Amino acid sequence: MNKRILASNHLGIKRFFALDSRAYEKGALDTKTKELLGLVASTVLRCNDCITYHVIRCVQEGASEAEFFEALNVALIVGGSITIPHIRRAVDVLDQCRQKQKRHEKIVL
Amino acid sequence: MNKRILASNHLGIKRFFALDSRAYEKGALDTKTKELLGLVASTVLRCNDCITYHVIRCVQEGASEAEFFEALNVALIVGGSITIPHIRRAVDVLDQCRQKQKRHEKIVL
Amino acid sequence: MNKRILASNHLGIKRFFALDSRAYEKGALDTKTKELLGLVASTVLRCNDCITYHVIRCVQEGASEAEFFEALNVALIVGGSITIPHIRRAVDVLDQCRQKQKRHEKIVL
Amino acid sequence: MNKRILASNHLGIKRFFALDSRAYEKGALDTKTKELLGLVASTVLRCNDCITYHVIRCVQEGASEAEFFEALNVALIVGGSITIPHIRRAVDVLDQCRQKQKRHEKIVL
Amino acid sequence: MNKRILASNHLGIKRFFALDSRAYEKGALDTKTKELLGLVASTVLRCNDCITYHVIRCVQEGASEAEFFEALNVALIVGGSITIPHIRRAVDVLDQCRQKQKRHEKIVL
Amino acid sequence: MNKRILASNHLGIKRFFALDSRAYEKGALDTKTKELLGLVASTVLRCNDCITYHVIRCVQEGASEAEFFEALNVALIVGGSITIPHIRRAVDVLDQCRQKQKRHEKIVL
Repeated sequence: MNKRILASNHLGIKRFFALDSRAYEKGALDTKTKELLGLVASTVLRCNDCITYHVIRCVQEGASEAEFFEALNVALIVGGSITIPHIRRAVDVLDQCRQKQKRHEKIVL
Repeated sequence: MNKRILASNHLGIKRFFALDSRAYEKGALDTKTKELLGLVASTVLRCNDCITYHVIRCVQEGASEAEFFEALNVALIVGGSITIPHIRRAVDVLDQCRQKQKRHEKIVL
Repeated sequence: MNKRILASNHLGIKRFFALDSRAYEKGALDTKTKELLGLVASTVLRCNDCITYHVIRCVQEGASEAEFFEALNVALIVGGSITIPHIRRAVDVLDQCRQKQKRHEKIVL
Repeated sequence: MNKRILASNHLGIKRFFALDSRAYEKGALDTKTKELLGLVASTVLRCNDCITYHVIRCVQEGASEAEFFEALNVALIVGGSITIPHIRRAVDVLDQCRQKQKRHEKIVL
Repeated sequence: MNKRILASNHLGIKRFFALDSRAYEKGALDTKTKELLGLVASTVLRCNDCITYHVIRCVQEGASEAEFFEALNVALIVGGSITIPHIRRAVDVLDQCRQKQKRHEKIVL
Repeated sequence: MNKRILASNHLGIKRFFALDSRAYEKGALDTKTKELLGLVASTVLRCNDCITYHVIRCVQEGASEAEFFEALNVALIVGGSITIPHIRRAVDVLDQCRQKQKRHEKIVL
């Protein structure tokens, strides 16, 4: 569907998508930290598709179990119990990634 | 005003405030990273008081100019132009902290 | 300013304002309970003007200190630490109302 | 389900539903413009059911491809990347409407 | 999935879940009132999982049809038409509970 | 403060600001319509600085009183009573602009 949106050839939308990708590239902060920032932002704003994306990216960047739960705890405290269904989603995606890793499968978006 | 709220002796509220403090303590993630998570969460949720708090804490934990702007850029991309007035606030508080640092004043909450 | 808005003679807006008033009138639920519902909704949505309004209305309807803090605790748990500046506002307005009551002043909107 | 809700005979809810319908009727602004306003509001507030409704109504009112993408771009810029899953939904509904139009099927809510 | 999250042994998350449960226990306000507060907060924040939970709890606490619709009307007025899909969900869950009650089935979470 | 933010030389933030400006330029939709989209989006997201900006821009683009109130009514219906303080702000800024126009003063951002 992203391809379909880009195929609309709306210049503003295309450029926004490019900025979106670049925001998570390594700079003064490493990519893992930026993806954790994206995960917490997505969790407090309660967007399941965005959470799924950032959990997978965090796994790809090597985030540990403890790092995940500490980041999700910040989101829970800032955003309250309304985030709980989304924290469930994050942990569910995380568990699926871990099972793939045990089977030596590649984690892809 | 936090003292006044705690003086209400509502156990749930007191315990929440304790959990809130602990969420940013050093663990698998260091405090600076956790405060950056708090800053991005506060910015996308657009809470100026929370932004002020986390900017000061990030400065105290030694966050660099580049780290601040990369974190704020993640917030801007995730949260959109509606966050711009709050990014202005963050940068304003940051500048005030930097001026205090130049004058060798202590950065306090 | 509400008078100015109603003076615009936009029928939809006028009718909305009427529905808004009626939503808090006594029915199966009493007015105090409905105002507490309005207070919690305003707190999790983080609207200071709305919080001020509903705190005053709750005081007028005889809400006790314990009822206030239990309702605000629900808002804090559901909405997270991002609601704290708004809970401060609620308690500040409550304290002002209590001082007026001690001086036997009328609590007006 | 709307019928079920109206069958509850709650006067406030019934009147709100009536105001909701009237808000999009032709006035100083034409219906297409008002439905685009509804679409952008629904996208930044991230409500898929509301987006689906307003996309269909915009198609019925003759909105062009370019008008859709320009309105969605405003929503994307204002609301940020968190709106992307909802912009995908809008474009998906739009494509379904266009295919129905090609087959000369009626576009119904 | 809550069990899985608690099994992570993150102390902050565990304690938050405990505070969440306690927030709805009988105090100065009775449990039914607190669950109605939770229902309205969940509706204006538009969280279907949370709405489902609080509707069931309100039914268990004996909330009447009129009490439900008056609380949902407050949510609709405060939160606007964007809450309508969530009010539909609330009424759908309510109807399912009422059918279970007619068949003398137990209402469980 | 926008100058200060751009002076940070963060490429992503600079490009976002450019996209933000371009989103409201005349295309298939005229500028007045796009500014009304921005106004409604800002009102339902409840950002006073953004509302002030878009009201002024709408006045500059020649929006009539009726067009303003119809757009604000859509925002009120979609976003609920929680938007009322922000609709007050919009009308206040509008009135200030109209007074400037009566005195033949230029309306500037």
